[in-house]
Amino acid sequence: MGNPNLTYDNQAISVDCTVFGFDGNALRVLLAHRRRMLPTGVETDDLKLPGSLISDAEDLQSAACRVTRELIGARSVYLKQMEVFSNPQRVQGQELTWINTYYGVALSRVLTVAFFALVKLDDKLMRYTRRKDGEWVELGSVRRLALDHNKILITAIDYLMKLFQQEPIAFEFLPRKFTIKQLQRLYETVFDIEIDNRNFRKKILSLEYIQPAGACEEKVAHKPAQLYAFDRNAYKRENKKIFKLNFVYK
Amino acid sequence: MGNPNLTYDNQAISVDCTVFGFDGNALRVLLAHRRRMLPTGVETDDLKLPGSLISDAEDLQSAACRVTRELIGARSVYLKQMEVFSNPQRVQGQELTWINTYYGVALSRVLTVAFFALVKLDDKLMRYTRRKDGEWVELGSVRRLALDHNKILITAIDYLMKLFQQEPIAFEFLPRKFTIKQLQRLYETVFDIEIDNRNFRKKILSLEYIQPAGACEEKVAHKPAQLYAFDRNAYKRENKKIFKLNFVYK
Repeated sequence: MGNPNLTYDNQAISVDCTVFGFDGNALRVLLAHRRRMLPTGVETDDLKLPGSLISDAEDLQSAACRVTRELIGARSVYLKQMEVFSNPQRVQGQELTWINTYYGVALSRVLTVAFFALVKLDDKLMRYTRRKDGEWVELGSVRRLALDHNKILITAIDYLMKLFQQEPIAFEFLPRKFTIKQLQRLYETVFDIEIDNRNFRKKILSLEYIQPAGACEEKVAHKPAQLYAFDRNAYKRENKKIFKLNFVYK
Repeated sequence: MGNPNLTYDNQAISVDCTVFGFDGNALRVLLAHRRRMLPTGVETDDLKLPGSLISDAEDLQSAACRVTRELIGARSVYLKQMEVFSNPQRVQGQELTWINTYYGVALSRVLTVAFFALVKLDDKLMRYTRRKDGEWVELGSVRRLALDHNKILITAIDYLMKLFQQEPIAFEFLPRKFTIKQLQRLYETVFDIEIDNRNFRKKILSLEYIQPAGACEEKVAHKPAQLYAFDRNAYKRENKKIFKLNFVYK
């Protein structure tokens, strides 16, 4: 039998999604407003990662899709379970009261499954999110978030850097056709480094899974650059890991 | 407000641990007996991964440690969150009744966080586990497990193969001092392949993070082989991925 001195059933599970986008210059994270009245009668508005308790009928992936789509619409998203945050004290006091009031429940504990997501960010998406009362905030400008969401965000940033060197996720951020400069700027942003242009170009052109897209940039003031595309099949055929940065920025 | 048509609070979270060990020849997984009386009055005994609902006061890692230690004692274990299994239908009918009876609860749903664990398996540990009513079953001999545990096990095997090529987890399976033959046999077992002895030996001796341990095998019938040790600091210094098998078995 389970230990009769323990209780097991006053918990619920939420999902919280860290959705990253790249605006061509900086990494941004998708945040939602949490507007509420404090017991003191003061109205507050803080930011949080998009999230929700999961309902009894949905699995985690569906719940994560649901909360993400509320702010970005029905776009294609790279979405992956990252880690469960399960400290029994992670949500307490006013934060727990807020959850219980918001959902009409009486929980003593909420565990959250953190999801990691990537989306192609463009002006149209920025406007969509703003209409839905969400924000795309530059990583460098993120302040105190609700609940333990700063902790989740930091974990997601570490995860992003690690995954970048294991899987071809760079291409989840970029348009289908991109310039080498755009790809370089993305790497520089994610790893917060400067990369030598010539070395980067040389390395990229040596990769069989990055091929000319047969077109150039349009509507640019400077000389239009050649566009490239990621060939997922070529990548799989070679069963290669994504190129390691140490080849590039030294 | 949360959607008033949904319910959120009749769920609980369990952990289930897939613990792998290597007996020098085959991979084995740690299983626990589930003995119970069916409603028909028949006693059954099936096997399951070690697991438990988490109690209100413990986090996931503690719960996973607790259930693992019940069967292997206070040994050092490589233990990592793998994935959450959250299909709303994953535990139903008799299986749900069993959980509710065992723990004295009235849940409609259980999500489980699957943990992935590795331990150095030796005769002493085998005997310990048997005294605690557990089993170390060869992977090839695992039959129908309780609940959705076959599915969890298959996911863990995939995860093992992937992680093997990303992190130096091979050395979690082996004694601190090991022979090249032992390491080779481990790789052959995990990937179910035959590896050319000479190529393997050559590759291993070229790795700076595998160094002679200054000793030889003892009490063996054949010519005692040189023992080697894994140097974690050297590995970290080089920030290398573990050697890829395609260098070895082609």
